[in-house]
Amino acid sequence: MGEELSLPAVRDALVREEDSIVFALIERARLPRNAPAYEDPAAAAGRSLAEFFVREAEVLHAKAGHYQKPEDVPFFPRDLPPPMFPTKSYPKVLHPFASSVSVNDAIWKMYFNELIPLFTVDGDDGNYAETAALDFACLKAMSRRIHIGKYVAEVKFKDAPQDYSPLIRAKDTKALMNLLTFKAVEEKVKKRVEKKARIFGQNITLEEDSAGKQEGNAGDSECKIDPEVLSKLYDHWVMPLTKDVEVEYLLRRLD
Amino acid sequence: MGEELSLPAVRDALVREEDSIVFALIERARLPRNAPAYEDPAAAAGRSLAEFFVREAEVLHAKAGHYQKPEDVPFFPRDLPPPMFPTKSYPKVLHPFASSVSVNDAIWKMYFNELIPLFTVDGDDGNYAETAALDFACLKAMSRRIHIGKYVAEVKFKDAPQDYSPLIRAKDTKALMNLLTFKAVEEKVKKRVEKKARIFGQNITLEEDSAGKQEGNAGDSECKIDPEVLSKLYDHWVMPLTKDVEVEYLLRRLD
Repeated sequence: MGEELSLPAVRDALVREEDSIVFALIERARLPRNAPAYEDPAAAAGRSLAEFFVREAEVLHAKAGHYQKPEDVPFFPRDLPPPMFPTKSYPKVLHPFASSVSVNDAIWKMYFNELIPLFTVDGDDGNYAETAALDFACLKAMSRRIHIGKYVAEVKFKDAPQDYSPLIRAKDTKALMNLLTFKAVEEKVKKRVEKKARIFGQNITLEEDSAGKQEGNAGDSECKIDPEVLSKLYDHWVMPLTKDVEVEYLLRRLD
Repeated sequence: MGEELSLPAVRDALVREEDSIVFALIERARLPRNAPAYEDPAAAAGRSLAEFFVREAEVLHAKAGHYQKPEDVPFFPRDLPPPMFPTKSYPKVLHPFASSVSVNDAIWKMYFNELIPLFTVDGDDGNYAETAALDFACLKAMSRRIHIGKYVAEVKFKDAPQDYSPLIRAKDTKALMNLLTFKAVEEKVKKRVEKKARIFGQNITLEEDSAGKQEGNAGDSECKIDPEVLSKLYDHWVMPLTKDVEVEYLLRRLD
């Protein structure tokens, strides 16, 4: 997120992040499940290749100066090294507590246990390192989208502190969740990510063009990822987890 | 590349790799130039953040078992560690010399000196770590596409050894290059990658759909990356470098 905090700016960030998530999932779907990447070989101190990769990648990203912003949240925050390169300070528009709000444990479990079986084909082509790298990209994009919820919450709070403050003081999680839920908006988001998967996941050929066939109308079976998986991902996990972030942030907003 | 070596299989791999390159460039284009990521700070042993990141990322990828296949070529191959996890052996369909054929130095120079100024906007938003990570993804996708040229060369050689062998023995680089060049195919590839950029780089909204507007027809100025950059990238660099790989491979094919 940039300097100005406004609902349109936050919404733009969320919409742009959808593209990154769709791209990352399409790339991961290129490879089959590759279960050995998720198993614990004796050699690796009880860690799967996927976990090893994410931990080490986060160390590298931290050295490079990542994880300074509240929307960039590591999955393994303990013992991350400090940046080795100069970083630019970002405008502090959120409550200082924002940095410690994280639902990455839930994202991790969801991704490996629920999502991977939904959008990868069963199989093992031996490309385990590539698999882990693509998994990291998916996790990173989803985590970023979900933790932008901190800005959503701040904007909404600033817009109507009189509505939020009593609920925050009463720690009324359920009422806060209701106040943050807009079913009609959520339906639109689901439709849009499904459409993005359909358009970004199609096989582009020059021939279709000359026949005047409209892009994005290829059968879903030809799509590199089932568009309904995107709709489901947002419906069951991305939007609920974003709201969990919003509520968690709001509950300490008055501290 | 998989088990079977056939021209259709190799072509499919090249076409699929186009999507990865377009996705990676669109993602990088999200951030401005961010020149400090390419400058040498005193702290980092004379290395820019971008170089530091790529070197360290390649170490991690090597530990995870990457760089076993002839199309996966590191930019900094010296002193890469061995895999820490079990790897699957891949079918050896190429001449053993294949692994050492690399044009990564040329890709590196082209990317940082020529390409980045073409597709990123001037500016500095401070996201240097993210910049370096996205650069690594672009480099990796382009390098992979270009080094699949080894398989292209092998398939073409196997298909017509009588045409290639005399030229290889005569070390006739120019004649080999001519034999590998199909202008009509190259024009098609350029048009296709441009079309992919136009379709994958558009801003998808639900509204356009209801108005019956055809996807991919938005003005290029609204596109996340100028589609002509993709056409130029392939014309000036990706296809010529792929043919350099093919020639370099063929020149030692009879050793």
